[in-house]
Amino acid sequence: MNQYYKQLLPYLERNHAYQTALALLSWDTETLAPPAASDYTAKSVGILSEEAYHILICDEVEALLKKLSSEKEQKDLNASEQAVVRLLQKEYKKLSCIPAKEYREFSELCATAQAAYCRAKQNAKFEDFAPTLEKLIDYTRRFASYRAKKGDNLYDLLLDEYEEGFTTEVLDDFFAKLRKAIVPLIKQVVAKNDTVCKDYNSRNYPVEIQEGFCRYLSGYLGFDFNRGVIAESEHPFTTSLHNHDVRITNHYYEDSLESGIFSAIHETGHALYEMGVEDSLSGTPAGSGISMGMHESQSRFYENVIGRSKEFWIPLFPKLQKTYPAELSDVSLDDFIKGINKAEPGPIRIEADELTYPLHILIRYELEKDIFSGKCKVSDLPELWNKKYEDYLGIIPQNAAEGILQDIHWAMANFGYFPSYAIGSAIAAQLYHHMVQQMPLNDYLTDGNLIPVREYLRDHIHKYGAVYPTNELLKKVTGEEFNPEYYIRYLTDKYTKLYNL
Amino acid sequence: MNQYYKQLLPYLERNHAYQTALALLSWDTETLAPPAASDYTAKSVGILSEEAYHILICDEVEALLKKLSSEKEQKDLNASEQAVVRLLQKEYKKLSCIPAKEYREFSELCATAQAAYCRAKQNAKFEDFAPTLEKLIDYTRRFASYRAKKGDNLYDLLLDEYEEGFTTEVLDDFFAKLRKAIVPLIKQVVAKNDTVCKDYNSRNYPVEIQEGFCRYLSGYLGFDFNRGVIAESEHPFTTSLHNHDVRITNHYYEDSLESGIFSAIHETGHALYEMGVEDSLSGTPAGSGISMGMHESQSRFYENVIGRSKEFWIPLFPKLQKTYPAELSDVSLDDFIKGINKAEPGPIRIEADELTYPLHILIRYELEKDIFSGKCKVSDLPELWNKKYEDYLGIIPQNAAEGILQDIHWAMANFGYFPSYAIGSAIAAQLYHHMVQQMPLNDYLTDGNLIPVREYLRDHIHKYGAVYPTNELLKKVTGEEFNPEYYIRYLTDKYTKLYNL
Repeated sequence: MNQYYKQLLPYLERNHAYQTALALLSWDTETLAPPAASDYTAKSVGILSEEAYHILICDEVEALLKKLSSEKEQKDLNASEQAVVRLLQKEYKKLSCIPAKEYREFSELCATAQAAYCRAKQNAKFEDFAPTLEKLIDYTRRFASYRAKKGDNLYDLLLDEYEEGFTTEVLDDFFAKLRKAIVPLIKQVVAKNDTVCKDYNSRNYPVEIQEGFCRYLSGYLGFDFNRGVIAESEHPFTTSLHNHDVRITNHYYEDSLESGIFSAIHETGHALYEMGVEDSLSGTPAGSGISMGMHESQSRFYENVIGRSKEFWIPLFPKLQKTYPAELSDVSLDDFIKGINKAEPGPIRIEADELTYPLHILIRYELEKDIFSGKCKVSDLPELWNKKYEDYLGIIPQNAAEGILQDIHWAMANFGYFPSYAIGSAIAAQLYHHMVQQMPLNDYLTDGNLIPVREYLRDHIHKYGAVYPTNELLKKVTGEEFNPEYYIRYLTDKYTKLYNL
Repeated sequence: MNQYYKQLLPYLERNHAYQTALALLSWDTETLAPPAASDYTAKSVGILSEEAYHILICDEVEALLKKLSSEKEQKDLNASEQAVVRLLQKEYKKLSCIPAKEYREFSELCATAQAAYCRAKQNAKFEDFAPTLEKLIDYTRRFASYRAKKGDNLYDLLLDEYEEGFTTEVLDDFFAKLRKAIVPLIKQVVAKNDTVCKDYNSRNYPVEIQEGFCRYLSGYLGFDFNRGVIAESEHPFTTSLHNHDVRITNHYYEDSLESGIFSAIHETGHALYEMGVEDSLSGTPAGSGISMGMHESQSRFYENVIGRSKEFWIPLFPKLQKTYPAELSDVSLDDFIKGINKAEPGPIRIEADELTYPLHILIRYELEKDIFSGKCKVSDLPELWNKKYEDYLGIIPQNAAEGILQDIHWAMANFGYFPSYAIGSAIAAQLYHHMVQQMPLNDYLTDGNLIPVREYLRDHIHKYGAVYPTNELLKKVTGEEFNPEYYIRYLTDKYTKLYNL
């Protein structure tokens, strides 16, 4: 092993120990911690974040990174090691320009912001969360400006954290193409919506029974309970302490069958990615999925591309009916498939169908651009949000909880994250196009055998963690870089067929 | 504030942040983490333990502690600050003689030992746990020897960690008195045991229903759900991240009504202590209960002195009967009180009645003395254990799970902890003797009002955290230092009355 790389390892190990503790503290705050704990625990989170900062941001690591970036030393590293160095350099560049004290204050703020957000959402009062949001935006803007070069678009710097190379230029083009294709499609579909009945979805589905069925589903997809757990939280999410401890959450609503089911499939998709990372990478900066876009490609591949297909439900639907005999005995498989794919503009992103979903993302993307260009103030957000929902989806949210407060992302200071969902959907379609050529995918689904799917994704994507950048990985797997045409074609074909257009 | 004390605070805060994370990691391992996680997470625990070690064990802290121990500076400190300095000095003395690397290895071992213990217990195979136990004993012995002065009894040094001043000399005398009083009492009681029927206890009690009733009980005693949570684990325990996040666990057996109920009351007693610590102390070395003996006095006061009294169950028993109508309708309150106090030698400590309980402790105390005097080897333990159970209780454990492997304490390297249970029982009796003179305690119980009890304990014990040493605190509250006579009298009176001796 290269001597400088070897000297770097103890720093990586120590940093990983802190990240493990911080991931657990965050998970615990979302799932279990008592209400009064958060302000007190947040202080410890702030301190540990600063300690972790000092482990990476120090003269020794800087010197080692400098040495390791020389051509000579690079040649001495294998692909994984090169990736670790590259990712650490990126992190170093991002963190080293932030003063440690500010980083600690920001970490402490984040640790309390989610509780503040949840309270505000419960009361549907945006003004209760606005001061916190203001601070989160200020920190995010300031931190980005520290590393900005002259002429840099601040929002591009944020996007880069979630999906390298997908700048506003790329995304503007992507969303323009997408919009052009789907807006007329939505119109055609909605006009025929009286042919699709999904009354069954809002019947009574007791939470404990949902929990059992969703747990079964996760296992069915290949979730390894020896290396993972499932819990409940306000907003479903996935987190990972390392590749042997991957955790997902769900949120069950008694009056919605679909919400819990598709959140379970979605988060399981994320979990399979993290569980599939090779042991040798776990605990290093390359020990997680490469990007949020690639991560969302996995969750959305499972949730939508596979999870809403007839083939997937052929072996599962009888079990679902048996689980809820009174609620589903009058529903046929075909009706169910039509129901779970019904495209209908609504106020809530995570409950949106595949077709209207990208418009929810577009709204957030445009708002985030406006926030970071300084075009809009926090106090303007609710109105702007509602205006865009009316314009793009013909929907006026009833209150802040189903409007501006519906997503937790901003409370986690994840600005620039949302576009990853649309990128992920597009990658999922591109992967699907490729995979059906590689294996009898639909036969596997019909047979109720999800293992070959997980194995393929593990061998071609998951195991590499963050070693290859998104486009490089996509080219390695599909022979082609990111190409949104597959997504547009996928949506068009799917909905044309579903609705007999 | 004293300038040197002020300089000490950042070290305390940082150390507390690590202790919070480590407490959470340990809690999570016991309650939720997936099986395969522990070996991986343990590495992070080892690293974080070493980092915490370096924060306290450094030249700066040593210099400050030296300054703060001078008479001049001591005068400048209030009682809480003096306590913090005293406790930190003790911790410094204990840790500073252990090499950091060994401390890390030991912490990592502890983080995996509990999982190894649980597996061995499930299979009732002592030999699977023996190598780990051997290592835990070696580390404990080595660490104690590092700080031992010539002629020191190693086991006395261990006892000192859980209850200062309660050396083998004190304990030998305590246990001798106790044994002299209770052995003949047990004989008399057992002879009349055919008059007590507790068949009801092993009927069918579904776990979810137990969980609900036990949760109600904790709230009834004053457990603050805004500052605490309840979960399940193999062995019931209490932990605290700080005074606004206190957690207890329970383990429910479908064929035992009492096990869950009295564990719930016991752990709630611990939790009330931690929740009651003053905010100003939380996060400092004085921010937890003073000692394990004093802690056990609270849990056992609630569990036994109050929790097994007729007055306590007068308002609660009808609710219990309503919770399990089929199982308890044929049981009267008097039969129930006799049942939950039935003294009957058995193999399991945590299910033992108040009268035989101290003999379980005596067995562990004698074995621990033998382990650390070098008199017995790990491989001899199961046989010695069984021999003592036969001699003292007339019981031969069926297997290792109900014998040597029944307690988790040794897997946590808590050698010297067990005597605290007996000390705690004795203090509980002493407190009870005092409290009935201070308030109409039994009227409160009969009225179903537990608040005055909690308030009294909070105002006289809990709020002080670890500010006053056990004997000083006892004198402050009861006017007298530790006096086991109250315990002996309490047991004698209680069982004489219960069994009409």
